Amino acid sequence: MTKAIFPGSFDPLTMGHMNVIERACKIFDEVIVIILENSEKRALFDLEERLHMIKSACAHLSKVSVMSADTLTVEAAKTLGANVIIRGVRSIKDFEYEKDIASVNHHLDQSIETILLYTDERYGFVSSSVIKELLKYGKDINGLVPEAVHSYIQNKF
Amino acid sequence: MTKAIFPGSFDPLTMGHMNVIERACKIFDEVIVIILENSEKRALFDLEERLHMIKSACAHLSKVSVMSADTLTVEAAKTLGANVIIRGVRSIKDFEYEKDIASVNHHLDQSIETILLYTDERYGFVSSSVIKELLKYGKDINGLVPEAVHSYIQNKF
Amino acid sequence: MTKAIFPGSFDPLTMGHMNVIERACKIFDEVIVIILENSEKRALFDLEERLHMIKSACAHLSKVSVMSADTLTVEAAKTLGANVIIRGVRSIKDFEYEKDIASVNHHLDQSIETILLYTDERYGFVSSSVIKELLKYGKDINGLVPEAVHSYIQNKF
Amino acid sequence: MTKAIFPGSFDPLTMGHMNVIERACKIFDEVIVIILENSEKRALFDLEERLHMIKSACAHLSKVSVMSADTLTVEAAKTLGANVIIRGVRSIKDFEYEKDIASVNHHLDQSIETILLYTDERYGFVSSSVIKELLKYGKDINGLVPEAVHSYIQNKF
Amino acid sequence: MTKAIFPGSFDPLTMGHMNVIERACKIFDEVIVIILENSEKRALFDLEERLHMIKSACAHLSKVSVMSADTLTVEAAKTLGANVIIRGVRSIKDFEYEKDIASVNHHLDQSIETILLYTDERYGFVSSSVIKELLKYGKDINGLVPEAVHSYIQNKF
Amino acid sequence: MTKAIFPGSFDPLTMGHMNVIERACKIFDEVIVIILENSEKRALFDLEERLHMIKSACAHLSKVSVMSADTLTVEAAKTLGANVIIRGVRSIKDFEYEKDIASVNHHLDQSIETILLYTDERYGFVSSSVIKELLKYGKDINGLVPEAVHSYIQNKF
Repeated sequence: MTKAIFPGSFDPLTMGHMNVIERACKIFDEVIVIILENSEKRALFDLEERLHMIKSACAHLSKVSVMSADTLTVEAAKTLGANVIIRGVRSIKDFEYEKDIASVNHHLDQSIETILLYTDERYGFVSSSVIKELLKYGKDINGLVPEAVHSYIQNKF
Repeated sequence: MTKAIFPGSFDPLTMGHMNVIERACKIFDEVIVIILENSEKRALFDLEERLHMIKSACAHLSKVSVMSADTLTVEAAKTLGANVIIRGVRSIKDFEYEKDIASVNHHLDQSIETILLYTDERYGFVSSSVIKELLKYGKDINGLVPEAVHSYIQNKF
Repeated sequence: MTKAIFPGSFDPLTMGHMNVIERACKIFDEVIVIILENSEKRALFDLEERLHMIKSACAHLSKVSVMSADTLTVEAAKTLGANVIIRGVRSIKDFEYEKDIASVNHHLDQSIETILLYTDERYGFVSSSVIKELLKYGKDINGLVPEAVHSYIQNKF
Repeated sequence: MTKAIFPGSFDPLTMGHMNVIERACKIFDEVIVIILENSEKRALFDLEERLHMIKSACAHLSKVSVMSADTLTVEAAKTLGANVIIRGVRSIKDFEYEKDIASVNHHLDQSIETILLYTDERYGFVSSSVIKELLKYGKDINGLVPEAVHSYIQNKF
Repeated sequence: MTKAIFPGSFDPLTMGHMNVIERACKIFDEVIVIILENSEKRALFDLEERLHMIKSACAHLSKVSVMSADTLTVEAAKTLGANVIIRGVRSIKDFEYEKDIASVNHHLDQSIETILLYTDERYGFVSSSVIKELLKYGKDINGLVPEAVHSYIQNKF
Repeated sequence: MTKAIFPGSFDPLTMGHMNVIERACKIFDEVIVIILENSEKRALFDLEERLHMIKSACAHLSKVSVMSADTLTVEAAKTLGANVIIRGVRSIKDFEYEKDIASVNHHLDQSIETILLYTDERYGFVSSSVIKELLKYGKDINGLVPEAVHSYIQNKF
């Protein structure tokens, strides 16, 4: 049984993330979405809000569970008994960034593999930063985030 | 049960390929190495030789089977009941090349996912072309190809 | 009045090309599609066929004219009184390739400017080579080429 | 009549920017340089200074007007009746960055096109950040910024 | 006699840096490691600590001397009578970043050349930032920094 | 005494190559330009012509000698007692290509180092292929190749 984790900030979850999660469900037996708490970046949505949004958006996916962690990714994986880390890549910049992280993780724990999924072309430009920028200018983010995330955000602002 | 295919020319199989196969065995239940016959590139080793070398090199991996195909990758996957295509990526050039192929494959069959594994840094420069160039100049390729491939080639030349 | 040329092999015209042409029509007063005859690459469709397909596909665009040329791009531009060369870019590889060509062209004639348009994400993977590869394996190319090109090709094969 | 906007921080205007503006004047009927106020980055020159410097540097270009805006780029374009956004690209990093922005803008308003111009090789390394770094160490920036900008800065420091 | 400088933050010195220094010693008569004080980035190790760590790690290399500077790199080079700046490059991102810096330096002083050395694949992912991240989570950095740096850090934390 | 080799096809020598050679002379005690005979690519200029053109172009550089070789680069270096291989890099594509070659060479002989010099921006687009393409269309290549090469080619065609 292959258990995979999909770590990230998810501030907030986008359609790009959602697309990766749905495709991961076709490959793995269990997919754990992990919100990594990154003390350096100030989040727009607090941890509770992000957990709530992801759980709502993934409610229809029985293989998916959601949690948060304040450790290195490989340690989260180990604790959960997962041996695969999933990362979505959109661009060359992502590719190089993820390569370094995958190498560090491989250095720390050789039993855990990082796999990359190409982000769907339709969502290639959709990052959490873009969502936040659009929200800042009061633009509609319909279609760029999962419906459950959209509703939550509309209620909040 | 997740079945994955690892398609390529494997002319010949390198340590880079071998590393991807071994890591894929940690993730998937079954890994099928498929030699895609590409009529345009003239191969140094014929199909029989390549099948033989890969089978020998993978003899210790019970999850691996080896075959050849003269179709598009997605059709080979479909015929075999595999829903994952594995590709190893070493560089930006690989990344962009594989992205286009993954997109074409996704266009042809949305049920099949392409996943990327980073090639181990130690084998980042080891491609089949490099092996062939070194053989041409009579250099030793020990350590750059699996032992079984090394023996086969030494006997041949 | 700004006249722009859109040079290429168009063997055959794809939806990616078509998307660039349609967007160029929103910017320029006149858009001339030029088939550059490249003696080194063997074309699948001869010059007459390519002219016919592009003319059919662009019939609804009054700003567009189509022709062929056997000269350097800048000379074709000069002869036609055009001062803009349009190029569609999909990837980093395209970007670097086009940069060199634009620099050569700028060296040859400083009065002519090269502008780049990003290819629509939906057609990021659609190149003439991909179309030819799919045709070779008898796959349907519906949606990847303009309707007029699709009909022509279906009648031919 | 094609109206194009050239948005940026211009803190300060460099020869790279100037080169893009001059080339844009060869292509478009009207070119509007727009200083986008970005509250997150602290500027070395305030808005008034930047408006003054650009106006001085572009005084000889009758097609150019200069203004500032505190909105999203596409909204600035729409308000001004412009349907083209011009961006200068120097490197791969620029290319990917601009691609995401162009995609967001296209998502927000499909009637507006982003076009890229390659920055002249001579100014490939000249960014506003480089100018500021050189000023910080008291180095001469002659030749890297337009003459009008050079005079203004020399008087200031 | 060719004198080369190797500038950086070295916060702290990694095996990647060390590898570049050792290889530079095979090429040049004298190699000066220069810690550039960058007031904007807050360092984990202060200047004295960094000088100490590099001197210890390079004690066996008679061609190497170590110092710090609070000027532009080319000025440090000029003052020291060095005509070569050495930079290690790991990735595309490094390559573009270094290209701009080399161009600025060339603009400032044409008598000084920048040369690039590829970082050894084994250390491709090892940056000072990675070391600091690992230290933050209490992970062992053995093998990623020179032995002398490792001892110093172990004593400190 | 540091001896460096600068290998290539030089079909023909360009201003980009010349720029690298002149800068290498500022760094190394001896610079040997080596024409690598590559049986696979058909050259426009035969070996004798290329040797003649490079020798003429480098006549003013006392540190430079010119020769040809039909071996792997590292073996040519070893035979000549050189421990440095110089490569000029213009682009990301060059960077990745050279990285693989440098890795192979390092695998074959660890005593030989590859160093990269950025090509001068002015010659970023000037490759031997571009020169040949321009010659094919009868364009002037003045300024893109050294004067001695220009004269030779003018006499020939």
